[in-house]
Amino acid sequence: MRDDEGMPQLRLALAQVDACVGDLAGNADLVVEWTRKGVQSGAHLVVFPEMVLTGYPVEDLALRESFAAASRRALDALAGRLVDAGCGDAVVVVGYLDRDAAGPRNAAAVLHGGGVVARYHKHHLPNYGVFDEFRYFVPGDELPIVRVRGLDLGVVICEDIWQDGGPIAALGEAGVDLVLCVNGSPYERSKDDVRRELVARRAAEARAPMAYVNLVGGQDELVFDGDSLVVSADGELLARAPQFVEHLLVLDMDLPAGGHTGSGPIGGFDVRRAVLSEQASAAYEPLPAPPVAEPLPDEAEVWSALVTGLRDYVQKNGFKSVVLGLSGGIDSAVVAALAVDAVGAAAVHGVSMPSQYSSEHSRGDAAELARRTGLHFSVQPIADQVRVFVEQLGLTGLAEENIQARCRGMTLMALSNQHGHLVLATGNKTELAVGYSTIYGDAVGGYAPIKDVPKTLVWQLARWRNAEAEKRGEAPPIPENSISKPPSAELRPGQLDADSLPDYELLDDVLDDYVEGDRGYADLLEAGFAPELVERVLRMVDLAEYKRRQYPPGPKITFKAFGRDRRLPITNGWREHAVG
Amino acid sequence: MRDDEGMPQLRLALAQVDACVGDLAGNADLVVEWTRKGVQSGAHLVVFPEMVLTGYPVEDLALRESFAAASRRALDALAGRLVDAGCGDAVVVVGYLDRDAAGPRNAAAVLHGGGVVARYHKHHLPNYGVFDEFRYFVPGDELPIVRVRGLDLGVVICEDIWQDGGPIAALGEAGVDLVLCVNGSPYERSKDDVRRELVARRAAEARAPMAYVNLVGGQDELVFDGDSLVVSADGELLARAPQFVEHLLVLDMDLPAGGHTGSGPIGGFDVRRAVLSEQASAAYEPLPAPPVAEPLPDEAEVWSALVTGLRDYVQKNGFKSVVLGLSGGIDSAVVAALAVDAVGAAAVHGVSMPSQYSSEHSRGDAAELARRTGLHFSVQPIADQVRVFVEQLGLTGLAEENIQARCRGMTLMALSNQHGHLVLATGNKTELAVGYSTIYGDAVGGYAPIKDVPKTLVWQLARWRNAEAEKRGEAPPIPENSISKPPSAELRPGQLDADSLPDYELLDDVLDDYVEGDRGYADLLEAGFAPELVERVLRMVDLAEYKRRQYPPGPKITFKAFGRDRRLPITNGWREHAVG
Repeated sequence: MRDDEGMPQLRLALAQVDACVGDLAGNADLVVEWTRKGVQSGAHLVVFPEMVLTGYPVEDLALRESFAAASRRALDALAGRLVDAGCGDAVVVVGYLDRDAAGPRNAAAVLHGGGVVARYHKHHLPNYGVFDEFRYFVPGDELPIVRVRGLDLGVVICEDIWQDGGPIAALGEAGVDLVLCVNGSPYERSKDDVRRELVARRAAEARAPMAYVNLVGGQDELVFDGDSLVVSADGELLARAPQFVEHLLVLDMDLPAGGHTGSGPIGGFDVRRAVLSEQASAAYEPLPAPPVAEPLPDEAEVWSALVTGLRDYVQKNGFKSVVLGLSGGIDSAVVAALAVDAVGAAAVHGVSMPSQYSSEHSRGDAAELARRTGLHFSVQPIADQVRVFVEQLGLTGLAEENIQARCRGMTLMALSNQHGHLVLATGNKTELAVGYSTIYGDAVGGYAPIKDVPKTLVWQLARWRNAEAEKRGEAPPIPENSISKPPSAELRPGQLDADSLPDYELLDDVLDDYVEGDRGYADLLEAGFAPELVERVLRMVDLAEYKRRQYPPGPKITFKAFGRDRRLPITNGWREHAVG
Repeated sequence: MRDDEGMPQLRLALAQVDACVGDLAGNADLVVEWTRKGVQSGAHLVVFPEMVLTGYPVEDLALRESFAAASRRALDALAGRLVDAGCGDAVVVVGYLDRDAAGPRNAAAVLHGGGVVARYHKHHLPNYGVFDEFRYFVPGDELPIVRVRGLDLGVVICEDIWQDGGPIAALGEAGVDLVLCVNGSPYERSKDDVRRELVARRAAEARAPMAYVNLVGGQDELVFDGDSLVVSADGELLARAPQFVEHLLVLDMDLPAGGHTGSGPIGGFDVRRAVLSEQASAAYEPLPAPPVAEPLPDEAEVWSALVTGLRDYVQKNGFKSVVLGLSGGIDSAVVAALAVDAVGAAAVHGVSMPSQYSSEHSRGDAAELARRTGLHFSVQPIADQVRVFVEQLGLTGLAEENIQARCRGMTLMALSNQHGHLVLATGNKTELAVGYSTIYGDAVGGYAPIKDVPKTLVWQLARWRNAEAEKRGEAPPIPENSISKPPSAELRPGQLDADSLPDYELLDDVLDDYVEGDRGYADLLEAGFAPELVERVLRMVDLAEYKRRQYPPGPKITFKAFGRDRRLPITNGWREHAVG
């Protein structure tokens, strides 16, 4: 038995799960399954991420009345199913899409005993980066506090803790014993440990510990990394889940019951209290504290994000296998290695598609990659198709180069149609930024796994992945020659990327400042880049918007990924490099 | 001389012009050119549309500090250039992108005598449909009123008149003699005459006449129709510009000077008055009232919107010519006729690309279209390319059908690369909705002129265009056979659209309710559609999101066009038809 019997105990379970947008039935099953796991672990309270029942983000589905009505019905049915599953005693917090007279709501419900005992509507609606919530949802200003086993629990949703002056301050003033923050917070590279620091700061503001539970898994271009955690009121990290895996984080907490009573209008909110159970749990022996997961090192974190995004895109869209072109170069080699890690070598089909300009080493490197990874390998020369197009249409120069890339794209799409594979595009972020790709050629595909990975990071990831394999005593998947040779599109004799582009190290530096850093021409000159280089790069970037829009979706690892949240005009007379 | 010398006169010019996003230099030239026209007409006041200096919408350019700084510099320079151009006495109202410590602003400036005499920052920021302004701009709450020739002028921007409780009420309370509303308001089919009714209602609220000036022309997927107008305080339509053309609407107004003085905090705004000139104009003979343009009838309006969108997309993106596949079917025939109207037959290249499944009448109808319109016509059979792909890869069924569409797409792209034409995709909205197209096949192109036109409207437009030609004594451009024959993709022997799709009349009815009307499965059954039909259509629509995203941009004529403002998840487990 425990010593400090005066302090109520709570066994908390954070269910870091992988929901699929729109799949109300599947997501409800997920909630039942993981609640049951929580209850089997003795948890009193099981908390799920933001909009777990609908998946996140639902985009325009939020505006469909029939979908919102189905979400509300699914929530009610879920409350009943939890009782049937023997989880009626547990308190379960579930994010869902609500809708009332004011409009759609990003909501969280507290379920207990077969019914909904409280609902909270997200107050702060983010409308930047990947978020369009102000477009879709109506903000809430009611703040429920639910007493469970004598402890007062507040619920907030994601952005509510990222902006000042929201519900956390009101909860602090009203008084709570624990704050539950449910999230759909996408992975972003090199954010340092901002989440943990933020949660600690808000816990202090709420004068209560905070439990932060996040989605995990890929949804279109977003990758959720999990990283659920619990922080004490004074900022101590009590528990942390591993990234990029589904996980149930179970933690026993001793919480001083404050006997709070604040309600009514507080800090712009209407605070409403509900009592589920006044009686604290009978004292019990707590579980050992769960291990505190360490955030992954940079390359491992990026690799995991890319693998997670790819695996979920394949699986959630119902594909059983993928196909990609293997040129022998670094990009396709890294995408192949990612695909093998994501869906297994047996589900990966690599196709070498040599033309008359393909070098011997390219074909050899592609075959070597296949040998090392065990993926299915085939060779489909494109010379005959290219010859017909070139001769019939009298193609020369760029038109002749592009038709080669396009015959490869057509070959991959035909194999996809014939065999049901998802086609992977192998372009990287640097190419996408400057438009160094062929629309309907190498840009063909349903998913582009390294779309947000700059070329220099592609090399870095290749070396890291090979080193990891060596550490594990496995064969490094990527042929050394693919990493070390000078990059070439091989669309004409002796062609090298360096003929058309600046050195990749330098190019990525300029792009990082221009795209991610949003610096203008003058800032870039001030940063020491040569004017001719800056003008050349900016001209390419400014003119490539149409190509970028036609590129398949891919996992986002930076704030300024090229994709749905970054919208530049296509018809655009602005030339950044032309102004001082 | 005039009789009523006591009532100040004002000669107002509304410059309904076609700006290009990002082209600060070109747009500034446009403002100078049209101000000069206004001054030559004796106008005292020349008013330009919303963000005319930057073009609209600037999308993510709004967030670039270097672009906002360039916009501000361009505005200052413009004020000086207007003096140099002999327009220093005129008062000129110009929309532009401003930026201050709070962030980017959708702004309008009043220019006079070489400087900026007042700035207004848009208050209501629309964030629905095609608009994302809450994402990009900070709302303003200062309201300048400028006295010009003894008359008090207020300025508001677009959405400010579409929402209740904005600056119009404050202007009414403070007191003004004329309200100028500057707009970037896109065309939308069958809106009836909501603009005119709204302007009349707001004029009553402001207790002053209102002059409404709108952009004209195409910008990516938007088409602005102009339709600038002036309404008296009691709702009388005083002047109206024709749609879809640049136009200077010059109107003499007799305005009772109210000698208003209200300022300071009014209705949530900080009202600030500035005096440019107290002295009314010496009485002069007014110009005859300009003709009040009638809105175009439905088909003419749609046709003009499509032609305008296409012409501006071609020209603003620097293309000299277009190329498209001519199948002999109705879609490509209508796109060809639109292209000829937009850029002239000499700049239109039609390519017949028969396969072994192409019928004699298809080839003949394509040639006949070319003969009637005078466009450049060539024949490029695809049988050889298709054979190589089919034999080498062992293609059958859908894979064999798709490779035909793709060899056509590759042919058009190769001709584009070789000769510099813009490729036009010929798919219609019905196909796009249900995914009845081949990605990288018939979906290839830089612009899709009938992307937002349902199949039944394609036929209707074809008949209308032919009838118009006959009225003018010209040859109808579209062969009767292309209109009357049953539609077929001709990708296998004897194939008809009717094998794969419901009857187009019925299909378009369901789609209109499901897509435009946002009705759910239950509503559709209630509307009397058969369950099997609804299930079949909804299943196709729900599964086609990826294809729709890969489609080229095209002119938007409905609120629910498939394009950038309609965002459904790709990975989407929601099946509308599966719920009751």
